[in-house]
Amino acid sequence: MGNPPRIAIDAMGGDTGPAVIVAGAARAYRRRSDICFTLFGDEAQIRVELAKYPDMSAVVEIVHGDDVIAGSEKPSQALRRAKTSSMGRAIGSVKSGAADAALSAGNTGAMMAMAKLALRTMPGIDRPALAALLPTLGDNDLVMLDLGANTESNTQNLVQFALMGAAYARVVLDLPLPRVKLLNIGTEELKGTDTLKDAAAILRDADFLPMRFDGFTEGDKISRGDVDVVVTDGFSGNIALKTAEGTARFVTDLLRRAFTSSLRSKAGFMLSRPALHMLKVHLDPNNHNGAVFLGLNGIVVKSHGSADEIGVANAIRVAARMVREDLTRKIANDLDEFSAHNITVAAAK
Amino acid sequence: MGNPPRIAIDAMGGDTGPAVIVAGAARAYRRRSDICFTLFGDEAQIRVELAKYPDMSAVVEIVHGDDVIAGSEKPSQALRRAKTSSMGRAIGSVKSGAADAALSAGNTGAMMAMAKLALRTMPGIDRPALAALLPTLGDNDLVMLDLGANTESNTQNLVQFALMGAAYARVVLDLPLPRVKLLNIGTEELKGTDTLKDAAAILRDADFLPMRFDGFTEGDKISRGDVDVVVTDGFSGNIALKTAEGTARFVTDLLRRAFTSSLRSKAGFMLSRPALHMLKVHLDPNNHNGAVFLGLNGIVVKSHGSADEIGVANAIRVAARMVREDLTRKIANDLDEFSAHNITVAAAK
Repeated sequence: MGNPPRIAIDAMGGDTGPAVIVAGAARAYRRRSDICFTLFGDEAQIRVELAKYPDMSAVVEIVHGDDVIAGSEKPSQALRRAKTSSMGRAIGSVKSGAADAALSAGNTGAMMAMAKLALRTMPGIDRPALAALLPTLGDNDLVMLDLGANTESNTQNLVQFALMGAAYARVVLDLPLPRVKLLNIGTEELKGTDTLKDAAAILRDADFLPMRFDGFTEGDKISRGDVDVVVTDGFSGNIALKTAEGTARFVTDLLRRAFTSSLRSKAGFMLSRPALHMLKVHLDPNNHNGAVFLGLNGIVVKSHGSADEIGVANAIRVAARMVREDLTRKIANDLDEFSAHNITVAAAK
Repeated sequence: MGNPPRIAIDAMGGDTGPAVIVAGAARAYRRRSDICFTLFGDEAQIRVELAKYPDMSAVVEIVHGDDVIAGSEKPSQALRRAKTSSMGRAIGSVKSGAADAALSAGNTGAMMAMAKLALRTMPGIDRPALAALLPTLGDNDLVMLDLGANTESNTQNLVQFALMGAAYARVVLDLPLPRVKLLNIGTEELKGTDTLKDAAAILRDADFLPMRFDGFTEGDKISRGDVDVVVTDGFSGNIALKTAEGTARFVTDLLRRAFTSSLRSKAGFMLSRPALHMLKVHLDPNNHNGAVFLGLNGIVVKSHGSADEIGVANAIRVAARMVREDLTRKIANDLDEFSAHNITVAAAK
């Protein structure tokens, strides 16, 4: 892949519209210029924003269209507009080969449905998964999946999620042998559902893969920094991710109340401000932005709807990195290893 | 129930042994003296601790025994010692009627197994659930259940959990009409598993019960203060509870790092200290201690293994309150209401 990665971007998705999306693209381009963009959406609006970044003109194409998938639309409604909407066309350009990855900050359910239909799951993968990065007390973020692409998962799904999550961690976290654990309600081998116990047994045998499987973890141990990939079904993963986000916000809200409760504590806050800024940066979701759909024949990244330009730039960098390091091929190679070792990880069809 | 509640306590459970348990009992007694205790465990050790609280002598009985269930033991091992262990005998005294409630800070799985076997589930309840209190930004704590008594739950289980959780919230949070929501991966009616959608449909019709069912909530909305009872299956509930605990600890660890990162921020910390103490109190698990097993023919409370004497006293107060307000009867009445309205919430057997 000698050409710079071309990222197809739904310029209309998200809470803020083209302004933040274009600013994010410009920021990603400033950081690393071997990248180019196709922006889908309202051309006039996009041009107004692009005018602020004259250096971008050489690397941006615009594909005009005025159909936008709303955040409240059902996936089934959105699917009907796969060929007209900015989101659908961005994904379609990955399918046609015109772009290397698609990115949107729009409706997650609609995006998943369109991406599945357009790109299909990779051979050997039964169901795609949604993966994201979370902050930890350790040296690197961790990858958690599935975060809600599926509501129920069987043993094969979990094993495939582990394999895809590990490949993603190698690419995006630069870890040659990521530590992988299954999320459970206890760390003892006997804990949890049969689905989890069976998945653990298969992964324990898969020591030929470039990852270290290390059994179970629990909700309160995730962020300690001793695991790089947390694998779970989409229901529990969604609950865990949102509970972590909600609790972080809850604690920082309490902290804000504490600091504003008296003149004295306000003064204390002013003094501690530079140090507290570190805490803010560490927890800021924009610094961990970019959830990815793994297991499709093509790269699709979801930027958070409320991400700022830093967040959008981070999501774009994640997408470009997956293209440059050919994540899809890495996952395919790992699946081949499984077959070579006569371990079946695809469900009978 | 004219007599003061008698609480049977496993004095040997938990990380700290009889010292903290006895101190917690003394603290609960000081706060409200119409209560009495039977302490199960090593009599010599218990007497040493009790000697520190001479006023307790009139309200404490000791039942000596030297068999203690370890934290690492499997429930199946523990069950064999239901008649000899301090935990088993405390629970047994509720069965025999000698005590009104049992409390232990020991092995949760062992406790659940023993309590189920000794007390059996109430008529109309298929499976007991573990419920606990969590802090919120609102005026009161919330009740969450199930937190891991079951790994999988069907529609009937969820409906029964909602009914039991609401009854518990009325008693322990003093809320005449608690707001009840089901934990899901989205708040729209179409989100989630069929199990959840069916449970929501039944609860929506159950407007005759002393609670307000208000649909679905998500992990990031739990602690906002707009729900009093969060109902979920034991797997997701365990994940959510532990993720919330872990994230709160993660953020406060980052905060500690921030405050100790420079002399300036240390000075800021000293100034803000009284205000930050509020934050600590709000988050301290000891102030929300006492998980309860709901749905059994008798009251059983789990104190956190690492609770301090304040935590133990809180757990004891929860147990006494459930006895005084006859929670078991309240649950039975609500189940009768269901039958009177021809809604079946017990699984066919």
